[in-house]
Order: sequence, then C-alpha cells, then structure tokens
Amino acid sequence: MSPIRYGMIGGGQGAFIGGVHRTAAAIAGNWQLVAGALSSTPDKARASGVEIGLPEDRTYGSWAEMLEREAALPAGQRIEAVAIVTPNHMHAPPAIAAMEAGFDVIIDKPLADSLENARAIIDAAARTGRRIAVTHTYTGYPLVKLARKLVAGGAFGAVRRVMVKYVQDWLSRPEDLIDNKQAAWRVDPAQSGQAGAFGDIGTHAANLVEFITGERIAQICAELTMLPGRRIDDDGAALFRLSGGGKGTLTASQVCVGDMNDLAIDVYCDEAGLHWRQEQPNTLTIKRRDRPDEVHHAGANRAYVPGDILAIQRTPGGHPEGYLEAFANIYRAFGEQIRSGPVAGADPGYATMDDALSGMNFLRAALQSSRDGAVWTDL
Amino acid sequence: MSPIRYGMIGGGQGAFIGGVHRTAAAIAGNWQLVAGALSSTPDKARASGVEIGLPEDRTYGSWAEMLEREAALPAGQRIEAVAIVTPNHMHAPPAIAAMEAGFDVIIDKPLADSLENARAIIDAAARTGRRIAVTHTYTGYPLVKLARKLVAGGAFGAVRRVMVKYVQDWLSRPEDLIDNKQAAWRVDPAQSGQAGAFGDIGTHAANLVEFITGERIAQICAELTMLPGRRIDDDGAALFRLSGGGKGTLTASQVCVGDMNDLAIDVYCDEAGLHWRQEQPNTLTIKRRDRPDEVHHAGANRAYVPGDILAIQRTPGGHPEGYLEAFANIYRAFGEQIRSGPVAGADPGYATMDDALSGMNFLRAALQSSRDGAVWTDL
Amino acid sequence: MSPIRYGMIGGGQGAFIGGVHRTAAAIAGNWQLVAGALSSTPDKARASGVEIGLPEDRTYGSWAEMLEREAALPAGQRIEAVAIVTPNHMHAPPAIAAMEAGFDVIIDKPLADSLENARAIIDAAARTGRRIAVTHTYTGYPLVKLARKLVAGGAFGAVRRVMVKYVQDWLSRPEDLIDNKQAAWRVDPAQSGQAGAFGDIGTHAANLVEFITGERIAQICAELTMLPGRRIDDDGAALFRLSGGGKGTLTASQVCVGDMNDLAIDVYCDEAGLHWRQEQPNTLTIKRRDRPDEVHHAGANRAYVPGDILAIQRTPGGHPEGYLEAFANIYRAFGEQIRSGPVAGADPGYATMDDALSGMNFLRAALQSSRDGAVWTDL
Amino acid sequence: MSPIRYGMIGGGQGAFIGGVHRTAAAIAGNWQLVAGALSSTPDKARASGVEIGLPEDRTYGSWAEMLEREAALPAGQRIEAVAIVTPNHMHAPPAIAAMEAGFDVIIDKPLADSLENARAIIDAAARTGRRIAVTHTYTGYPLVKLARKLVAGGAFGAVRRVMVKYVQDWLSRPEDLIDNKQAAWRVDPAQSGQAGAFGDIGTHAANLVEFITGERIAQICAELTMLPGRRIDDDGAALFRLSGGGKGTLTASQVCVGDMNDLAIDVYCDEAGLHWRQEQPNTLTIKRRDRPDEVHHAGANRAYVPGDILAIQRTPGGHPEGYLEAFANIYRAFGEQIRSGPVAGADPGYATMDDALSGMNFLRAALQSSRDGAVWTDL
Repeated sequence: MSPIRYGMIGGGQGAFIGGVHRTAAAIAGNWQLVAGALSSTPDKARASGVEIGLPEDRTYGSWAEMLEREAALPAGQRIEAVAIVTPNHMHAPPAIAAMEAGFDVIIDKPLADSLENARAIIDAAARTGRRIAVTHTYTGYPLVKLARKLVAGGAFGAVRRVMVKYVQDWLSRPEDLIDNKQAAWRVDPAQSGQAGAFGDIGTHAANLVEFITGERIAQICAELTMLPGRRIDDDGAALFRLSGGGKGTLTASQVCVGDMNDLAIDVYCDEAGLHWRQEQPNTLTIKRRDRPDEVHHAGANRAYVPGDILAIQRTPGGHPEGYLEAFANIYRAFGEQIRSGPVAGADPGYATMDDALSGMNFLRAALQSSRDGAVWTDL
Repeated sequence: MSPIRYGMIGGGQGAFIGGVHRTAAAIAGNWQLVAGALSSTPDKARASGVEIGLPEDRTYGSWAEMLEREAALPAGQRIEAVAIVTPNHMHAPPAIAAMEAGFDVIIDKPLADSLENARAIIDAAARTGRRIAVTHTYTGYPLVKLARKLVAGGAFGAVRRVMVKYVQDWLSRPEDLIDNKQAAWRVDPAQSGQAGAFGDIGTHAANLVEFITGERIAQICAELTMLPGRRIDDDGAALFRLSGGGKGTLTASQVCVGDMNDLAIDVYCDEAGLHWRQEQPNTLTIKRRDRPDEVHHAGANRAYVPGDILAIQRTPGGHPEGYLEAFANIYRAFGEQIRSGPVAGADPGYATMDDALSGMNFLRAALQSSRDGAVWTDL
Repeated sequence: MSPIRYGMIGGGQGAFIGGVHRTAAAIAGNWQLVAGALSSTPDKARASGVEIGLPEDRTYGSWAEMLEREAALPAGQRIEAVAIVTPNHMHAPPAIAAMEAGFDVIIDKPLADSLENARAIIDAAARTGRRIAVTHTYTGYPLVKLARKLVAGGAFGAVRRVMVKYVQDWLSRPEDLIDNKQAAWRVDPAQSGQAGAFGDIGTHAANLVEFITGERIAQICAELTMLPGRRIDDDGAALFRLSGGGKGTLTASQVCVGDMNDLAIDVYCDEAGLHWRQEQPNTLTIKRRDRPDEVHHAGANRAYVPGDILAIQRTPGGHPEGYLEAFANIYRAFGEQIRSGPVAGADPGYATMDDALSGMNFLRAALQSSRDGAVWTDL
Repeated sequence: MSPIRYGMIGGGQGAFIGGVHRTAAAIAGNWQLVAGALSSTPDKARASGVEIGLPEDRTYGSWAEMLEREAALPAGQRIEAVAIVTPNHMHAPPAIAAMEAGFDVIIDKPLADSLENARAIIDAAARTGRRIAVTHTYTGYPLVKLARKLVAGGAFGAVRRVMVKYVQDWLSRPEDLIDNKQAAWRVDPAQSGQAGAFGDIGTHAANLVEFITGERIAQICAELTMLPGRRIDDDGAALFRLSGGGKGTLTASQVCVGDMNDLAIDVYCDEAGLHWRQEQPNTLTIKRRDRPDEVHHAGANRAYVPGDILAIQRTPGGHPEGYLEAFANIYRAFGEQIRSGPVAGADPGYATMDDALSGMNFLRAALQSSRDGAVWTDL
C-alpha cells in the first residue's frame, strides 16, 4: 500500500501540535508529507517549510495557494489529503476549501470554533463526499480501545457511574498568558471559540466518556470558572447524565497545580469497574467483587489482548508506547480508510464528524449551563 | 496517667464497629473497657459481654441499667465515659442520658440520625458540661493531619478545587440487602436517618474536605440515586462551593463495583496540589509546578515530619500503620482531653460536636438538593 | 476462651520492640499482660512497669525474680507464658529458665545470638515440653500466608527464581551509632551475636523465602560489608540455591539511603510470578503470561480470599491493616495453640523452633561465606 | 540541517528490530532511509525492500552489493551511514566493510558475537576514522540521562550499592523456541555468540549500571542457568563489584513468568537512593533520609528538568514518550555527531565502542564465572 501524500496547513515555527502531527504520521508509516502552508504569514510559512525539509516548490505561502496549485498537479503526484493544525477559528475555511478541492481532511480537535462552523464542515463533507477525521488522540491508545470493546460491548452490564477528569497546570499562574503562543490563542475567545479549558481538554474528557461507554452525554450541570483577570474558563466541573441512564462527574482544569496531563477515567458498570489513566496508558485495571483485580497490559506479546488491538501496537509488552504512538494510530486508521474504504460496522479507528459534533454540542451545553448558574441543560 | 474506664453501648454479637472501637481503645493504651450494654436485647447483651471477657457484674442488659448502676459505684471504680456504637437512630437517647449521668461520650459517626437529635445531644453537652467526641476516623491518620496543617495552615495559598470520593461496592448487588446486619439498618430510613450512602460515607468525605481545608462546604448541588427496589440512596455525586470560594466535586457510592473503601481526596491550592488516599494512608503526595513531586511518608523516623504528627505514630517509617491505628488516635486524643483538659487553640485530635453538626448539615442539604432536582442548596 | 496471662522480660523505658509486643498482644485479644521484668536494671524495671500500668506487686526487678515468684502463685493467677524482648544475647538464659519454671515462651527473633544458644533453647523445650514461638513478624501478614498457600502448595509448579531484599537506611550515616539505644546493641557483636544487618533483617528476608516457597536455602554465596569504622556488617548481598533447585538473590542493608523498611519479594515459578512488598502489605500481585495480572487484596469482604486467611483479618477490604496487626496474628495463633493444642498438619501461624534454627543457620553460613571471600557455603 | 541518508542491513520480513530502527530514525527526524539489504536471502531482501517502500534500484540483494553500489553513487546522493540490524554473528563483517567503504555505522547491540569480533570492528573504526554508535536503547531515555547526571556527576556522593534486573518471560516455556524467528537465532550459540539471556538483556542491565554510575563493573560472580534441553543461558544472577568500590546484584532472565521487559535499577549513594524502571520510564524517584521522596517527571514543561534533557523531549510532561522515542534519541544524537562532529567533553548521547566493548567484556566474564562454578572473575 503506497503512503497517503498529504499537505499540512498550520504547524509552522513556534507551534506545537504541527510537529506532533508530522511525527505521528511518520510513525504511522502510511503517510508522506509532501506539501505545506505552515503559517498564515507567507514568509514564515516558507521558512517553516524549509526548516522541516519540504521541497521549496511545495512550500506555499497560504493554504489557498496550496489547495489551488496542488489540485493542478497530476493525480499520482498531488496531495491526497490535508492535515489542519491551525487555531480553532481557522479550521472551517481551509477544511471546506480542501474538500471542495477534492482532498480528504484530518483536523486537530475540536472540529471548529462553533457549532455553526462545525455544521458547515459537515455539510461540505456530505456535499463533496470527502472523508474527515478529527484527532481525539486519546481514543488512539490501544487500551482505550479495549475499554470500549468491553464497556460499550456490554460485557459488564449497564453503565452506572463515570468519573472523568482532565487536569493540567500550565495556566495555573496569572502570568501564564503572557508570551505564550499556545496559550494566547487558546484563551482568546475570537480564536478558540467561546470556551477555554472546557473546549481545549474538557471535550477530550467528554469524548473519552462517549467512546468507552458507547453512549452520549444527554444532560449536564456545569460550573466553569477562571482566575481573576481572564476572559475565558480555565477550570470547571460538571455533573452529567448519560443517554443510558448512568450518572457522572467531569472536571477539566488548566489551573490544577502540579498536574501535567492527568486525563483519567473510572467507569462503573453492573458487574465491573474499569480504570484508565493517560499518564500511564499501557495498563487498564478492571475490578470486580468476586475475584482479584485484573491489570491488562498493552503490548504485542500478551496473548489475552484481542487481535485487532494487538495489531495496532509496535512494540512487545513492557516496551512502552506513548502519546505519539496513540496519535499515529489515528493517522494509520484514517490512511487505511482512505486507501481501502470503510469496513461496514467496524470502529473506524478515529473520531468521525458525528463524534466531533457531539463534542461541540457538549461544549455548547456546558457553557450554557454555567452561564445560567450551573443548572441542568440538555445536549 | 491512668486509663479512662469506659463502658460500651452496642457492639454485641454480629456487630462490626463495636469490635473496632474496642481494639482502637486497646491500641490507644489510655482506655480500659470495664462495662458494657452490648445489645438492646438483654440476653444477647449479656452473652456478648461474656464473650469479650467483661466481668458478669458489669455486663448490663440495657444501657439505662448500665448508666444507673455505674453512676452508683465509687468514683475510682465507676466508668468515666461511654462509647456509643449503636445504629444511628439510637445515638441520641443514650448519649444524652450518659452525659446527664456524668459521663463523657465518644460516639460513632454520624452524631445522630437527624439534625434535631444532633442538636439535642449538643444541648445536653452544654447543659451538663460533658465532652463529646465523634469518630470521624479518617482524620485520625497522621498524614491527614499533615495535610490539614499544610492546607488549612495556608502554606499553599487559597484552595481552588477539591475532588473527593468515597466509593465502595458492598451494596452493588440487589441481593446485598438480604441477611446483612450491617446493611439492614443502614438502608432502613427509620434506623439510619434519611440518608444511605451519603450519610454513611458521604459525610466522611465531606468531613475530610472541611478538616483539610479548614473551610466549610457552603453550597451544594447533589444528585442521589439508588438501585431499583431500594428506599434510600446508595450512590450520588455533587458539585459544591467552599466558604473560601473554592469549588469541588464529591462522589459517594456503595455500588461502585470493585472498590473497597476508596476514600480519596485531591486538593488544589494556588501553589500546590495535595493528594491522599485512604487505602494507602501512609503516603501524602504534594505536587508543584517548579519542582519534583514530593511523597511524604508516615513513620516515626522520618525527620521531616512535624513533631506532633510523629508523636501519634507507633512504628518506624515503612512499618505501615492502618485503619485501627487511625481509629486509636481518635481515642488517644479524646482520652488525653478527658485527663488533661483542652489545650487552648490546639486541634483536639478528634471531631467535635461542631464538626459533627456540620456533617449533619451537609447531609440535610444534599438530600434537599437531590429531592429538588439537583439544584444549588445552601448549607 | 480466657486470655493467656503473660509476663514480659525486657521492653522497658527507651526500648522499641517491647511496646510493639504489648500492643500486638492487645490487638490479638487473647493475651493479658499481668507481670513484667522490663529491664536488667531493677530500678528502671520497676519504673517501666509502673509507667505501662502493671500492678506494683507484679513488677519485678529481674526476670529471675519474676519467674520464681510467679511460679509460686496459684495456677489460675500466675502467668502462663513469657514474652522475651531483650537483646539477642539475653534470649537464651530467660527462655530456658522460663520453660523450666513451666511457662511457654514467645521470643523476639532471632531465637538467640548463636547457634549454640539456639540449640540450648531447643533442648530445653524438648526437655520441659514447653512451647516456643519466634516472632518472624512478616509471616503474620495475611497475604504472605496466601503466597505460601499458593507457592508452597504447588499451584504454580516449581520455584525457579527468587529475588528478596530487606533494605533500610537508619544506619546510613556514620553518626547513626552514637546515642542510639536500638543501634547500640545491634551493632555490638557481644550483644547481638556476630551479625549486624544480616542478623537483624537478613534473617527476616531468608525466613520469608523459606516460608513462601516451603523450601530451605541450601547454599549461599554472600558478601557482607560495612561503613568505615564499624565492627559488624551493615550491608550485604548473596546468591543462593534453594533445596528444590531454584536460584535466588538476597540483599539486606541498613545503609540504603531513602528506604525505610523495604522488605520485598518476587517469586517466579513455572507458571506464575508472585510479588509482595511489606510497605504495601495488603496487595499481592500474581502475574502470568496468558492472562492479565491479578492483584489480590487483603480484607474480610473479598470472597476470593481463602477462609482461613479471611479469618485472621479484622477490617473489611480497603481499611488497611498493618504491621501491628501482622504481629498480632503471631500472638493470636500462639495463644490459640497454648489453649487448644496443635492441629495436626496445620501451619501453626507462627515461626517454630525449626524455622528459627534455620534462620540461625542461614546467618552462620552467610557470615562464613563472606569471611571466606564470598564463596559458596552449605547451610 | 539535512537528514543523514542511510541504508539498512538486515531487518526484512519477519524481523522485529529492523522496524524499530526505521521508526526510531523517522521520529528522530534527522535520518532518511534511502537504501537497504534487508535479508541475507536476495529474493527476500528485495521483497522486503518493496514492502517498506524503498525504491527498487536501491533495494539490494546483499549488503556487499549495497556497499559497493552505494559507494559508486555521487556524494550528495549515496548513503552516508548504515544501520546494522542482523543477528549478532553477522555484525562484524558488514560493519567493517561499511566503514572501509566510507560509511558511518549504527549497530544494534551487542557490538558483536565475540570480544575478538568486537575488537576487529573497533580496529576498523580506528583505521578508517569512521564513527560507530551502538544502540543501548535504554540510555536514550531522558530520565536515565538525568540519573547519570546526578549519580556520575557526584551529586549524591559515592555509590554504595546497585540492584539491577532485566527480566522477561518470552522464553519461559520449553516450546518457546519452536517456530520463533527472534528466539531461534538468539538461542543458537553459532548465531548469537556464547550467551543467551546475559548477552541479550544482561548486557543492557550492565550498560545501564555503568552509564548511570560512571563506573565500570570490575569483578563479577555469576551463575547462569537454563531450562532443561536448552544449550544457552536463559536466566542468571550475579554479584558484582564496581570500580569505585560499590557492590551490586544483577539478574537477567527470559524465563521469569509474567514479566514483560522489566528493566529496573536502584542505585544507593552516600546521600540518596535513586530508582528507575523502564516500564514506567517517565518518572525517576530520588529518596533521602531527611526530606520527602522526590518524583521527577519527564516532560518538556517541567522547569526543574535540566535544559539538555528537556531538549531531547517531544511532548509536554504527562504526554508519555516511550521506547521508540528513547530509541529515536540515540539516532538523533548520532546524526548530530555525524553532521556537527563531537562536542569536547560532552556525553555523545549514544553508546560508543568503549561502552560496547565493556558490555562484551562483562559478558565474557559472566560466562567464565559461571562455567567455573560461580566464582569471582575479573573484567
């Protein structure tokens, strides 16, 4: 299978997530970066392209230029897909244009900065027949997939209670917003949409809940807050109710001092409790009443791990894979879809538009609930 | 210092917590069990007394008999205090009567089955001048005391966010209420008061929050639930606001499959995050942004542990103390108070009536909030 | 069952282990301290007796006096057993005298300061028909008993490899021997016998190996060392061979900076690996190749724990028991033996003379091996 | 900086480590795979080349052919280095030939199958002036580098004791040698050299000891063993003495049931103990007596991590990097050396010939010691 030729939009000098996408695609092995419009500033776009070794003639000064000129190349040469790694408010325009130019799209989450823009992207996909993947990275971890298989698959009965949190500390000090490129756009409502921590990481937590349980968050009662002087939430918590009747709590914060990327979930079903933590992603603990706890390990030489989950791992058990490999799994799966088309009924291996839209909707309801005084709000 | 002679009310055959109190008092070393009315059934009371080695003439058929006959004994011989380990609805009558008979009272939490009865006990204490301790056991752990010293003492700045949970699984199956003495009274509103899991363990979680932060829970938005066919909550969660402005989440459940006694708390302040878990009580982790995490160990040979916390430990670091030793610390501190009187300004080392009343109030507000549809309710 | 009346020899002011024995006996519930000769200095012996609440007329100035006068008391009143908690070189004389006076003996490990003295104690036991228990505390932990049941019981096939360590840091600084009562006698060959760390804690490690595997250490190649200026080992390691053919490593050190009481063992058999650590004694991990790791929990409400192991626990799962409770299990079992006599074929629940002698022999061979340049030496 | 063009020798269909090298080089970002002789069977070599996307004209049927034809290409086009990922006995011939053809060499450890062959490689390097890196992967982990900086840098005083183990279970069953390409050559003395587990993973453990302490293993007393029917060690343990006077134990086994890749090290110095475990590579614990344990985290946003260690990380703290990223750090550092030449006095960032030779020497002495009955043997 030949690799997917792709171009990147955003991700130039000083950006973080662009490099992550490129490395993930390299690990995936079935993607090849051949073009880029890496910044909204043409000079910086070109300098960034050179820096990462793109050929000069395929380093473009703007995404519009890239789409136009790539579309004009011969079929076996031009890009087949674009990766969009711009700030949230710059997701929709290039995504829609890329699909209209005939390219598939992989896009950093969230899908867009507003429900309206998200729907515009989805409409464009329907109109053009192009594919979209959204990088809800954490569902790329093998043991998260195992968790889904067990919980959403019904092996443990109904979901009773979920506790999920995603807590960081990189905005914990008032001065953290000064001279910080990552922070600057995230906390500017005009660039990131209306939400801060809940949009940036709360949606990851919500996506993880929905992915593992196979249910949707149906109602939420959320209280968002922020440090003095800020314009957008940097911390919050919520009660929620699942579509299947279970209950849950969700905390998302970027001011929880001492925590790095502590995304952690506990899912309690009728017959078992299941525990996973992103900072130690290669173990999944399952607890029951009538037998010892089970600690499942990722790793390709553990025979009890289901075959499709073994298949996405690169190293034997005990040689830890991490965040970049989880991210690579998203790319790998999307690349396989592009080449081979969908397998009916199968989990595609990446977040679809529906998943992403659900995340946008979660965010909309959380913001609404908080604005109304932390009252119950439907999704 | 001679030991405190005490009599026990409740705790006979088939009961659990009575034995825990007796062992805790033995470990404390400054208490001596000399009398008992161990059951509300006279025959069983007497059989239970013999079984645990009480002299026959001080094994009474009822607590009323015990109080009357002990009060008639010479001062150097009669009991000085009673330990009340009956179901919640049987706390107030013997507690009030004991104080009126001149005895101090140590009482299993919650203080009473209703705010009214709790206030009656408190009034009796004021009237008689007797002392009351309530066994919120978990504040007896040395590292919980260290946590309070650090957080309530202000070393880390203001409290921003608290996550606390107390989750068990012993009522996770519908059949768990059948033929289970511990369960039976706890889930009968007439015996336990109006609350199930929130009264039984949610109050422990709330007490831990207030003890460590030195603040009160000011408002709560709680949703309590239960398995089909039950009359009283076995599970629930809440958002809360602290008196100092911080926010929090609290989960209390007895149907979280696979968890045993997972009381765990995370407290985030301006300058540090602090983490403690009852199932591994001898470590306290403190995380900051600009230095490695610190793991504090209990144990009498670790020189960095403050002296008053070292003083309540029995074994060197690495020889773990557990639940019974934490419980013993409550007894030890109350015994010292009885012998030596209060030290002005000092933490008494056990939950006082005020703490216990706050717990009752928490429960009242949580139940009210849930009945009203999980809306914000003042404490 | 009435409690065993006992007298204590040693354990007065400034001592550590005497208090541990008394608390353990109190938790056990089937022992009653009624007499004591708590120091080799008569005045200090009496002052210590008063301090812990012994009646004055049964606080003796020497163990010889205690044995003589207690033996003269009526049968229902005099002590039935003695607990010996003196330094190692003072184990044999009172132990032998106590047995000759008709009392059973529980004795802090090691049994004696030399193989000769250990054999003298054993001879006395045979001559008098009295019982001896040695407090190899760590075998009192419920999950260590479970480990033995599984490994020595053969559930996992042959033992292939064992890794055991017992590492502390309380002698890690040269100045740690100054003004330290615990250290002083332990590092004086005249009082402790010829071994330091290997005698003090290495024997615990060796005992744990033999207890769990049901085998004996057959050969050892050991290298012991010490900080400059010391006369006795404070650190060492060994290779060993088990009687069943398995191999192992053992490290014992009191100069491993940062470790408190890190006794830990890994046992690998044909079909499983088993892992236990004293500092977190309430979990036992079993690993296999073809299924997830199993984490077994101590605790009286976990139904998969065998009944006889449940029976020695006091609190439900998740309410941790610790070192004192493990110690209490030794007392409890010995008390039951004294009252009820041995159950044929059953594990008595405490270390017997044979176990203790094996420990002495281990120590003899380790010292010999090290003196000869770390060569293989038979036990 | 343009990437290093390299060709791979070995690593075709059915091999494991070749793919790891290719992915590591891709993550490193400064390497570009342009040629390959992926198997000793020409047809398989070519099929393997196609499969991984090499151009047909640079997919060679033998390494000799590759070296000859690549050397004939223009300077800006031909390979600059080769990666050798063949079985141990096929390291020396292509390594020497490659250097003679003017290429630098990165070679999977161990350097060769015998000390003689290792010395031949080293001689060739001296003769040709080419560079050699050996992939002792585990020293590529950021926190292992931090450990070296602290211990070898002398921050904690002299090294007293080291405990290191590398235990796996993939050969734990007799049948594991049947139909297993990885196992087959490793356990055949003709292909792997004379050592099994000690050569395969024991050398990693020894390298880790020497890397972190900055000392050499000076003497060893080792006992190697194997399951019935095998010709080469699959398990063993050793006592060792460091050049600086410290002592240690080392265990290496491929039959320790339940362990995956449990490489773990404890290093005790005068002032601190340091603990690291490969299966959770992103934490490093440092313990002292007079302060709480310190847990250091990898991750580019933790300001207390030294700058040169931050610089080799790709993701913020809490987004775990793993084995492939550690491997990539080896490639990255070697690539930088090739481009920029050595920085005087600096750690080169990969294992040099000296390190590798020391590993070979370790192996030689361990085998000799074991053959002689586990006696002390000089390195």
